[in-house]
Amino acid sequence: MAHSEPLTSWLDVDAASDFSLANLPFGIISTTAYAIPRVGVALGNYVIDMKELSCHPEFYRVFDFIDEHSDVFSKPSLNAFAALGRPIHKKTRERLQDVFSASNATYESFLRKDDYWISRAIIPMKSIRLHLPMEIGDYTDFYAGYHHAFHVGSMFRGPKAALQPNYTHLPVGYHGRASSVVVSGTAIRRPRGQILAQPPAEGQPSQPITSPCRKLDFELELGCLIAKPNDMGNEISVRDAEDYIFGYVLLNDWSARDIQTWEYVPLGPFNSKNFGTTISPWVVLADALEPFRVEALENKTEVQEYLKGADKPVFDINLEVELKTPNGDSSTISRVSAKNLLWSFPQMIAHHTIGGCPMRTGDLLGSGTISGPEKHQRGSLLEMSEGGKKDVAVGSEGVVRRFLEDGDTVVLRGFAENGSGRVGFGECAGTVAATPPSAA
Amino acid sequence: MAHSEPLTSWLDVDAASDFSLANLPFGIISTTAYAIPRVGVALGNYVIDMKELSCHPEFYRVFDFIDEHSDVFSKPSLNAFAALGRPIHKKTRERLQDVFSASNATYESFLRKDDYWISRAIIPMKSIRLHLPMEIGDYTDFYAGYHHAFHVGSMFRGPKAALQPNYTHLPVGYHGRASSVVVSGTAIRRPRGQILAQPPAEGQPSQPITSPCRKLDFELELGCLIAKPNDMGNEISVRDAEDYIFGYVLLNDWSARDIQTWEYVPLGPFNSKNFGTTISPWVVLADALEPFRVEALENKTEVQEYLKGADKPVFDINLEVELKTPNGDSSTISRVSAKNLLWSFPQMIAHHTIGGCPMRTGDLLGSGTISGPEKHQRGSLLEMSEGGKKDVAVGSEGVVRRFLEDGDTVVLRGFAENGSGRVGFGECAGTVAATPPSAA
Repeated sequence: MAHSEPLTSWLDVDAASDFSLANLPFGIISTTAYAIPRVGVALGNYVIDMKELSCHPEFYRVFDFIDEHSDVFSKPSLNAFAALGRPIHKKTRERLQDVFSASNATYESFLRKDDYWISRAIIPMKSIRLHLPMEIGDYTDFYAGYHHAFHVGSMFRGPKAALQPNYTHLPVGYHGRASSVVVSGTAIRRPRGQILAQPPAEGQPSQPITSPCRKLDFELELGCLIAKPNDMGNEISVRDAEDYIFGYVLLNDWSARDIQTWEYVPLGPFNSKNFGTTISPWVVLADALEPFRVEALENKTEVQEYLKGADKPVFDINLEVELKTPNGDSSTISRVSAKNLLWSFPQMIAHHTIGGCPMRTGDLLGSGTISGPEKHQRGSLLEMSEGGKKDVAVGSEGVVRRFLEDGDTVVLRGFAENGSGRVGFGECAGTVAATPPSAA
Repeated sequence: MAHSEPLTSWLDVDAASDFSLANLPFGIISTTAYAIPRVGVALGNYVIDMKELSCHPEFYRVFDFIDEHSDVFSKPSLNAFAALGRPIHKKTRERLQDVFSASNATYESFLRKDDYWISRAIIPMKSIRLHLPMEIGDYTDFYAGYHHAFHVGSMFRGPKAALQPNYTHLPVGYHGRASSVVVSGTAIRRPRGQILAQPPAEGQPSQPITSPCRKLDFELELGCLIAKPNDMGNEISVRDAEDYIFGYVLLNDWSARDIQTWEYVPLGPFNSKNFGTTISPWVVLADALEPFRVEALENKTEVQEYLKGADKPVFDINLEVELKTPNGDSSTISRVSAKNLLWSFPQMIAHHTIGGCPMRTGDLLGSGTISGPEKHQRGSLLEMSEGGKKDVAVGSEGVVRRFLEDGDTVVLRGFAENGSGRVGFGECAGTVAATPPSAA
């Protein structure tokens, strides 16, 4: 019954905070006073500086399951901590809950009653800078949001042929670009590229132009970060896949729709996707989302044996998209649950490795755009504007968008909630910067 | 005129060696006696252990352009050396040519006349182990081999519609998987995956099965390794791109044709490519290939301004594919020049970054399969067997292949030659291992 009541902390944590004691997400922080990036844990409006806390003379007695020589909290990424494995993540989060719990006196002398260590290890959230949480090896983006795939397919081929024949048999995905994955807050330059300004005349060849993208879009996704590697040649089963998951972030897979239309046949999206992918800075540990498991969308196709999985493989996370214009208008243009997936992350991992492809600590998997069946549940402007044909209202009367304009900011948010406290992601935000003149 | 005569070394270098004094490719080596991977340079049947040589008390006087605190030769990858930039690579190679030249007495006392340092820094090739030469950030595979694209397109759509409308306007490419790039000699497990054992009956839905790949293929490619990064948002022009290139390797982009056919619509190849990509261990520096520049294939399309490049942007490298069966049969099944590209690496780099995508030191770009116009110049079995319909003879009478069988070894070789000495890549080899029983 412990988890049906809110966990309360002796630190002052607002009940509406994404970062309740039931959450405790991990990130990479730095401060003006101490600029070297290191591991932090969010709790309300505070951050626990894990590097500083690990200097406490009692730290490795309290966290006795962490090798005191491993130095995982002093690293500039979460990779070393993630590589310790999911049982250690679970114990670390639970022990932090004990240390910060208002009702647990066991560790009072360790921190709560020690002003020196509180002042050294607890930092106000507003004074920290957040960095990319992991060193990302490979980034793979899936297409598991059924309603998104159906909407977009319907636009191009009509509802009867909306989904390709493989769609319900395997989690379709493609390899993305790891080098352009950036942390929330990083500006996204509108890409220049080849586009067809107009469709070719009947019987005439296509004639592209080089131009700043005219159909810039966001994509609302959930990202999954890998904790531990598999050897090349060895597959990961659906049932083992949970052990390979470190945690989750929000992900905006910025997309240049006009570049994509021209370039993507036959090898898939390339420059339309590789100019920037934004992730939220706080990694919500896999264990923190356990209470929010629900069934995925029903797949009427009998799937292959290696894709048959456990019950309740996805999470009921409330996702939102806010669009802000440079003039100060803003609207929440989408609200949708993250459960709207045909394929779960364990299924994506099993499929990704069925041929022996090796995962590495820090690999990032995107769910694909998450949309719901209703109009207010779309995860991209492409869908909301029906391919750029309809206005999407933003704030004041008459302020509309079909695609993103320079200066627009897209903010993704997500949280799950039950009696134990709110488990949220904070913000995944990015502002569109104008294409500079070509230097080439 | 210096370079119209062979450069000869005081070390015994066979005239037929890929690793002449005109070459001096860089790799990562280890030995039984000293197992820590470090930088080596190939010269004939010897390897110069650069870590050991850099311990020579005179090393940083002879190589005075390298910061003696940089430690680049003791690293387990070439990334740190590559990041020093192309002028330093050029000077290092030229100074090594001076040190090992039979006709240059300037550095005789440094090495040639010092038996102690010769025994310490020169290792017989046969006693070293070769490792993956670089830590690869992102791997991108292009499709710039015009004849390959044309042959494969013709098989599926006929010669008139063989090439997609974008093909002559931009270097088509896709993001590959960096985690499964392996060094020559690594076994390649035949991937398991979803395939259509037979095409669906008229009006019936497709029904895949899960099976070891039945159409396993190789792809003959040239790989290009990136030396230095560009900032995200900044493009690299065609004319600047050469400065960003560290060197070249041979690349076998192993491909599961049956998995590819089923999975690749609409987002491109995924599991059909991510189970293994083999590269040759010795990186031939960009400068070593300068004498072999030739024109690329003519592109009759007027390309966009940002893709207009320099003369002679590709290399006349003699590429070969040898196929060996487990019974000891073998044939050289293809001979083709690397000049058979419609797009050069500088054009690929300019296109890759036109939208602001950041390159990093160690990124790998594949050319795409290189085929010539003639039958004996095909870079894949898919082409040689005309989609699996015709036998390809291998060695003894009656030994044939349409796709690869378990135990088959594919060896790629490549070399360029003029009066100054042979500039070769050595071997890029891999043997197909049987799919193990599913553990999932």
